[in-house]
Amino acid sequence: MNFSHGDILIGEIIGTAILLLFGTGVCAAVTLNHSKARASGWIVIAFGWGFGVMAGAYTAAPLSGGHINPAVTLGIAVEGGQGWDKVPTYVAGQLIGAMLGSTLAWLAYYSQFAANADRDGAMPTLGIFSTIPEVRAPALNLLTEIIATIALVLPILAFGLTRGLGESGTQVLVVALLVVGIGLSLGGPTGYAINPARDLGPRVVHALLPIPNKGTSDWGYSWVPVVGPVIGGVLGAGIYNLAF
Amino acid sequence: MNFSHGDILIGEIIGTAILLLFGTGVCAAVTLNHSKARASGWIVIAFGWGFGVMAGAYTAAPLSGGHINPAVTLGIAVEGGQGWDKVPTYVAGQLIGAMLGSTLAWLAYYSQFAANADRDGAMPTLGIFSTIPEVRAPALNLLTEIIATIALVLPILAFGLTRGLGESGTQVLVVALLVVGIGLSLGGPTGYAINPARDLGPRVVHALLPIPNKGTSDWGYSWVPVVGPVIGGVLGAGIYNLAF
Amino acid sequence: MNFSHGDILIGEIIGTAILLLFGTGVCAAVTLNHSKARASGWIVIAFGWGFGVMAGAYTAAPLSGGHINPAVTLGIAVEGGQGWDKVPTYVAGQLIGAMLGSTLAWLAYYSQFAANADRDGAMPTLGIFSTIPEVRAPALNLLTEIIATIALVLPILAFGLTRGLGESGTQVLVVALLVVGIGLSLGGPTGYAINPARDLGPRVVHALLPIPNKGTSDWGYSWVPVVGPVIGGVLGAGIYNLAF
Amino acid sequence: MNFSHGDILIGEIIGTAILLLFGTGVCAAVTLNHSKARASGWIVIAFGWGFGVMAGAYTAAPLSGGHINPAVTLGIAVEGGQGWDKVPTYVAGQLIGAMLGSTLAWLAYYSQFAANADRDGAMPTLGIFSTIPEVRAPALNLLTEIIATIALVLPILAFGLTRGLGESGTQVLVVALLVVGIGLSLGGPTGYAINPARDLGPRVVHALLPIPNKGTSDWGYSWVPVVGPVIGGVLGAGIYNLAF
Repeated sequence: MNFSHGDILIGEIIGTAILLLFGTGVCAAVTLNHSKARASGWIVIAFGWGFGVMAGAYTAAPLSGGHINPAVTLGIAVEGGQGWDKVPTYVAGQLIGAMLGSTLAWLAYYSQFAANADRDGAMPTLGIFSTIPEVRAPALNLLTEIIATIALVLPILAFGLTRGLGESGTQVLVVALLVVGIGLSLGGPTGYAINPARDLGPRVVHALLPIPNKGTSDWGYSWVPVVGPVIGGVLGAGIYNLAF
Repeated sequence: MNFSHGDILIGEIIGTAILLLFGTGVCAAVTLNHSKARASGWIVIAFGWGFGVMAGAYTAAPLSGGHINPAVTLGIAVEGGQGWDKVPTYVAGQLIGAMLGSTLAWLAYYSQFAANADRDGAMPTLGIFSTIPEVRAPALNLLTEIIATIALVLPILAFGLTRGLGESGTQVLVVALLVVGIGLSLGGPTGYAINPARDLGPRVVHALLPIPNKGTSDWGYSWVPVVGPVIGGVLGAGIYNLAF
Repeated sequence: MNFSHGDILIGEIIGTAILLLFGTGVCAAVTLNHSKARASGWIVIAFGWGFGVMAGAYTAAPLSGGHINPAVTLGIAVEGGQGWDKVPTYVAGQLIGAMLGSTLAWLAYYSQFAANADRDGAMPTLGIFSTIPEVRAPALNLLTEIIATIALVLPILAFGLTRGLGESGTQVLVVALLVVGIGLSLGGPTGYAINPARDLGPRVVHALLPIPNKGTSDWGYSWVPVVGPVIGGVLGAGIYNLAF
Repeated sequence: MNFSHGDILIGEIIGTAILLLFGTGVCAAVTLNHSKARASGWIVIAFGWGFGVMAGAYTAAPLSGGHINPAVTLGIAVEGGQGWDKVPTYVAGQLIGAMLGSTLAWLAYYSQFAANADRDGAMPTLGIFSTIPEVRAPALNLLTEIIATIALVLPILAFGLTRGLGESGTQVLVVALLVVGIGLSLGGPTGYAINPARDLGPRVVHALLPIPNKGTSDWGYSWVPVVGPVIGGVLGAGIYNLAF
């Protein structure tokens, strides 16, 4: 499909903003006090992010195809489904959208963030915005992100071959459930960025916003959830090109 | 589509009654003692409401298009998909249906409500019928409802552009899962009314029904889950009109 | 559709056996000791039954239309979609299938049932096979079953009007998720029989099988989950005939 | 469909690798310390495996039809949908893929496995790779696997008769949700292998990998999750041939 630069930018901003509104939102919902979803578990996190993909990608689809993830954009470019000249426009929209969406989630949970400051031993808040590994080991964390992103991009490209999915409009739904599955199965070690914009955009927002007791933005780790998904996206498309 | 006023009224009454039967039902199921679903968590709440949207909207669709939410009706009117003259009929049906459905849920859980009175320190019951914010701050609660309703109405309008969804009949299913996602991600602060009829109708019912130890109907807060979704619905449609 | 008596009988036996294999199975899985799913909560129960409907109804559909529930068969007969002369064949198949399926589930969980006898204060096992109200009040339990069955049969009939659902093959999936929703929202008081065969067939099996320490089969309550769904099925179809 | 031996091999390797990456991954996620999904329950296990089926089968479908399970391959051969000469190629791909996928999951969770060795009383790790019965009774464990595999293969074959499912591309999604249902309902006693490659491949990997404190690979039980699904696949197809 041949989307214009303007439509791609607008579509990806809106779509990625919706993704991060849902994703940052569900992390706030499960993590912060004074939330009705407090401590409701990993199943809530995984479905919240997955349905965020569903909402964002379906909404963006008519304007930009609904990539909402630079790793997906890269994978599609490697596969040949989208010209390389559009990649910077996609990524720009995705980063802007990710920052916008996580800011909206912060506004929606403003009172919950504010209350965090009142407690003794206020909780660090970066985990609501960006990923933090459970065991800090950059090479292994990178490997986890690469594997999880291959598990995203290779299936997405292959889904395009199951023609009925596109014609019945259900392809994005299947991708969304794929993301739920990645969260459930591969999110344990690093929190599954699998999307550079999803991690970097909100990290910038976390650094800039006046969140009380917000703790570190952990820039030392920030390259892992960017580089890992980039490598994974390219590898996923490479495997696709070899096998299909 | 051009539905008659009579069909709209009947369709929206039935559809919104089903929505509130499921929605009030799942809140009773998780909250009240002597319920098999007691304390089964936020995932149950979010899927219960979402599948209530699915059941109600699919049922109402042949008669009225299945809006079952004044914010959706407003958004569609702003977008131009439905004449403004039909809006009052939609909203009347939605309010009547919401009252009917929450009354049916109360009947289904009659023994559970009755048993609530027998305990020491009986629980307030308004949270089963209408939304209550975790942190009372009307301006911020309003903002949360506006953001969450934009996240409902903008995607719903955009889904209409993914043509296969309508033709395969799966569009309502995707909307239902969108509502699950909004619940998981954005329900933490206010309980996600995102639908004026869903909140106001059951609040009237709560005020009228002879529920033992029912506690306050909290009319001071009642404008927030009405005004917020109205603003959000109009803004969601406005963004849609600008971007698409 | 005009299915032969023979195909209806075989289809409904197979489909209802699958439903009860999953349904009895998930209740055993969550309830009994030495099960990996022990105490995994109401969300597991509701999805287990719902996907049992999905598996059973899709499997039976080519032979019998996949009713697998006398209340649905009655509702379709009242609505006019199936001749009354086929009703006894449907119901016979459903009862045989329900007995077969719950027997298979007992075999699959044989060791778990056996271990139940070894504990002090062995747990009653009827709740794995048939429904038990949380608060015993036959008139109110009946009302709950009637409301929940209307919420099943009215939407099922209306789904038939959303033509794409049938043509894309996704209608049974939507019905299955409807049943998940009924479980989450309306299952709290009585355990949602909403299907006379689902309750009566396994109750007979429970009375006959040599389950150690099995406890009562509670025949005094057994009419409620039969009569309630029958009334609900007829009422649901009656509302459908009036409104659509 | 007539897939070439080469495409079958590649497709089944990729598809089964994805299945086991998700399946082994979710077991690691829920079981191991230093995982964000630690102790998140049976609902996570069942959906993780089911969405692994979805991802793997959709990805493999264009190359091989996406069996990713010798029991399914056998069932389709018995039913007549695929020549017997292709069976060894399918099974070879499935075994290789299962070993590859579980190895990738071990890499993704490398730090978590490493940390397991540091604790007092390190946990046995076989349960992450292969199934272990809750109550060791080979004949009954075999029976459970046979019943659960019939519940997989008979519906899969019958789904092929609901034509819209294939044309809308949603058939694999329904199979995936079927597997979620089998996990919820029938996974309690043995952990639901229902797939010889899913159990044997990772068991070999478990025996070979240098996992610290890994415990036994339990070869004494290893025939049950191979023989049971083989019998169940043949029986499921036999019932299908008789009834449809």
